[in-house]
Amino acid sequence: MSISYAIIGTGAIGGYYGGRLANSGKEVHFLFHTDYDYVMNNGLRVDSTNGDFFLPKVNAYNDTKKMPKCDVVLVCMKTINNHILKNILPPILHEKSLIILIQNGIGVEEDVEKMIPGVDIAAGLAFICSGKIGPGHIHHQCYGGLTIAPYNFSEMSIVDKVIEDCIDAGIDAKTAPYHLARWKKSVWNIPFNGMTVILNTTTNYLLKDETESLIKDIMLEVINTANIVGTESPIPLSFADEMISATKVMIPYSPSMKLDFDFHRPMEIEYLYSRPVATALQHGTSMPMTSVLEKELRFIESQYLQKK
Amino acid sequence: MSISYAIIGTGAIGGYYGGRLANSGKEVHFLFHTDYDYVMNNGLRVDSTNGDFFLPKVNAYNDTKKMPKCDVVLVCMKTINNHILKNILPPILHEKSLIILIQNGIGVEEDVEKMIPGVDIAAGLAFICSGKIGPGHIHHQCYGGLTIAPYNFSEMSIVDKVIEDCIDAGIDAKTAPYHLARWKKSVWNIPFNGMTVILNTTTNYLLKDETESLIKDIMLEVINTANIVGTESPIPLSFADEMISATKVMIPYSPSMKLDFDFHRPMEIEYLYSRPVATALQHGTSMPMTSVLEKELRFIESQYLQKK
Repeated sequence: MSISYAIIGTGAIGGYYGGRLANSGKEVHFLFHTDYDYVMNNGLRVDSTNGDFFLPKVNAYNDTKKMPKCDVVLVCMKTINNHILKNILPPILHEKSLIILIQNGIGVEEDVEKMIPGVDIAAGLAFICSGKIGPGHIHHQCYGGLTIAPYNFSEMSIVDKVIEDCIDAGIDAKTAPYHLARWKKSVWNIPFNGMTVILNTTTNYLLKDETESLIKDIMLEVINTANIVGTESPIPLSFADEMISATKVMIPYSPSMKLDFDFHRPMEIEYLYSRPVATALQHGTSMPMTSVLEKELRFIESQYLQKK
Repeated sequence: MSISYAIIGTGAIGGYYGGRLANSGKEVHFLFHTDYDYVMNNGLRVDSTNGDFFLPKVNAYNDTKKMPKCDVVLVCMKTINNHILKNILPPILHEKSLIILIQNGIGVEEDVEKMIPGVDIAAGLAFICSGKIGPGHIHHQCYGGLTIAPYNFSEMSIVDKVIEDCIDAGIDAKTAPYHLARWKKSVWNIPFNGMTVILNTTTNYLLKDETESLIKDIMLEVINTANIVGTESPIPLSFADEMISATKVMIPYSPSMKLDFDFHRPMEIEYLYSRPVATALQHGTSMPMTSVLEKELRFIESQYLQKK
């Protein structure tokens, strides 16, 4: 059995993962936004630390109404525009389609389930440094792992097939329990995304002196909250040190929110900050440090969005 | 009985309070740093919302060794340089001298007492918008109250005399219990000083939307900490709303730390942030929000001090 893929949002993430799947011969249909004409004429180029490749002809679309129904839908756009999923996803879904939300934050699956009741949803966690550096041109700098975490279903055969396809395409893919996967990723995302924006810097400069201890304290706040909210197994406190050590050996890095800030685009504050803070409150605890970052980020964003 | 005053640091604060005392005929001796020559030749000018005045000749010094011993020493410099007090104060102290530290933060009196054991110390809380706008030229924009809070003594006759002199000089002066006075001032100082620096803005822009709620949450953190540390009487939680309302009717304002930031001077992070955070820990509580501000400020300061 071979399965078909839709890539919703062909940028740094969708262009890389979708590109790899297409490059290995899978059936992949790409939804483009601004790059549609360019890619129709010039193809999709991926410069990758795991080997460059070029797809002269891809199944490109600028509207999901023109796309076939697909078995697996990889949502790879920023959560900023998730309200449009309610309208753009149904045309490509059949009864057994699986939606994988390769997005950051806490609560995205819950919201998409409300928009499209009854559909199977999984979280996709991308551990990757990748960027779009031109129209139809992706630059994959490092890492590249993909974790798939089923949110509201337990029949794993389609997930197993996706993992198999990914591995066949050169993507280091695996599954993980849902809450554990989402919260573990937040342990890194919450301090580093916000702090690089607020202090206008990159990861390496934060891992010194006071800010390193602040990063660790925020990580511990996220871990403690996750363990109260209840992940499938507890996250050990030592995971904070692991994440810090892993970041120290990374290249100086601007997380996705820092890039949004640099280009004066809306930031993913809602799912990365506000929802974890709200989830903590619902469970009788609080995230005071995360909530400082949340509100500082809201202020910073309102300053530059007003000027636009 | 008339008493003599020494002003240690004749800037926005010392120039205003010392200037008013001298203008009303009190004996005041001013220590200058960079403005000494200018004031010797041109006098001290104070533009004030309560009435401008000009002192063509003041008792000006550039070294405390040349000053007479004084009954009351008003320390009006930034806490950044408090380590020099150990050397510069003893020449002007007699057995009964009172030191009033008109400075921001928590813990300043404790440290000065260690430097000069046995001396009487009071906190001075200046509620004033004032700035030095040129050599020997002070601009007092609004407010102007001074609260004096005895730290390590109970014999009030000299404090009463200072209050009397201040009122005679047109300064709205009063006394207050020490811990209560220091912590109440911190309720305003901690959120507004740090947030105007971190978000590079003025008070009025912070009092909207998310940042207003953040300001309030930080104020509540300070109040809760103060009440655990143990002030002479508890600070009611409603004090946060009072401070916010009072700030809303103020002119758009840059607190002293924001001015230090704007001019790339060292900031008073130690006494305004690190000491309250450390004091909380000593009392078995914590100030997570204040500690985020503390570490962000340390980062920001290190960035511009390095470039100097």
